[in-house]
Amino acid sequence: MKRILTREPILAANDAAARAVRERLGAAGIFAVNLIGSPGSGKTTLLEATVGVLPGVRMGIIEGDLATDRDARRLAALGVPAVQLNTGSGCHLDAAMVLGALERLPLVELELLFIENVGNLVCPAAFDLGEAAKAVVLSVAEGEDKPEKYAPTFLRAQAVVVTKADLAPHVGVDPHRLAASARAINPALVSFVVSARSGEGLDDWRGWLAAKGVE
Amino acid sequence: MKRILTREPILAANDAAARAVRERLGAAGIFAVNLIGSPGSGKTTLLEATVGVLPGVRMGIIEGDLATDRDARRLAALGVPAVQLNTGSGCHLDAAMVLGALERLPLVELELLFIENVGNLVCPAAFDLGEAAKAVVLSVAEGEDKPEKYAPTFLRAQAVVVTKADLAPHVGVDPHRLAASARAINPALVSFVVSARSGEGLDDWRGWLAAKGVE
Repeated sequence: MKRILTREPILAANDAAARAVRERLGAAGIFAVNLIGSPGSGKTTLLEATVGVLPGVRMGIIEGDLATDRDARRLAALGVPAVQLNTGSGCHLDAAMVLGALERLPLVELELLFIENVGNLVCPAAFDLGEAAKAVVLSVAEGEDKPEKYAPTFLRAQAVVVTKADLAPHVGVDPHRLAASARAINPALVSFVVSARSGEGLDDWRGWLAAKGVE
Repeated sequence: MKRILTREPILAANDAAARAVRERLGAAGIFAVNLIGSPGSGKTTLLEATVGVLPGVRMGIIEGDLATDRDARRLAALGVPAVQLNTGSGCHLDAAMVLGALERLPLVELELLFIENVGNLVCPAAFDLGEAAKAVVLSVAEGEDKPEKYAPTFLRAQAVVVTKADLAPHVGVDPHRLAASARAINPALVSFVVSARSGEGLDDWRGWLAAKGVE
């Protein structure tokens, strides 16, 4: 029988798995952040830099990509437990995938979990992964109009991290104006302007994570 | 041919609309290019530069975005007939939307049509829009690993345009190596390395369009 699955049952099934993820993370006392951003927005590099500024924090990472285990290997090289999920042609992670990945992480040893979603500024936002917060990662190289053009993702997030601030003079984009344009879409957003290369802004980002009970 | 059950009817309906688009464009003698790339990869800026290097070509443009008519206004400001399509929360254009947009363009006056898809390196590739060619737009700021990580899109394209070549020294990415990594995924790709800012590579891009009967 051929049938078109509408989004409602897909999202309902996802929400059930997200509740299971949230219960497991809650029981383990783990704060989880779902990182969402375009391909090349700097998600993995932000995670590498975050490992560097949170040396005492017991962190785990779930990496989502269509293919390759490059990103998990980059983080594992820093001594962080990292699980790679491959979606094939799937444009986002779902909670069932994350639930499976939790089995491969030493949850009792962790206090912070990053879930790096598939590079995509549209689809991941609709899928609750059981995270405590969604953070949008947006590089200055993407241009100032992106929050307005991709508003649904910004509306569902709690934080926005403007990356590659060191490129600002070369691309003619003011990273603080870019952050402000994201907050104009969603005034509840906390925003950070960072450069993994120069270290700019990483203290503020660390401070936000610390305020969430990490560290 | 085996397809995933739930997607089959959606893609079949899209293919029917794509055939109608292709017939109309064929009858009008219009060469159509479907531009696919991440948010901020430089698709609209490439189009602005293309208008500049093809002054004698009768060009039309369909712009796809979740929201705003910024991009259509940018192109219309250059004197190009431009139609904006807004997908709401949709992560790609479909052929039915393009078919509707054709009604709003002066087809008998055109020889080249660009369809700028929603900024997304994953979802647009699966939907035939009735175009003659798909071109992936990828900026050096996105990093060298993207063709391997987003292979399905590169496998369905005929061309890849590596943009923002002027940023190469600032991001530590060799644009020609990036182009080569895309060709390694799909050896049938023709590749271009361009900078809309410096004008680098735009002659080759224009040459490819000319070889397709445009100009």
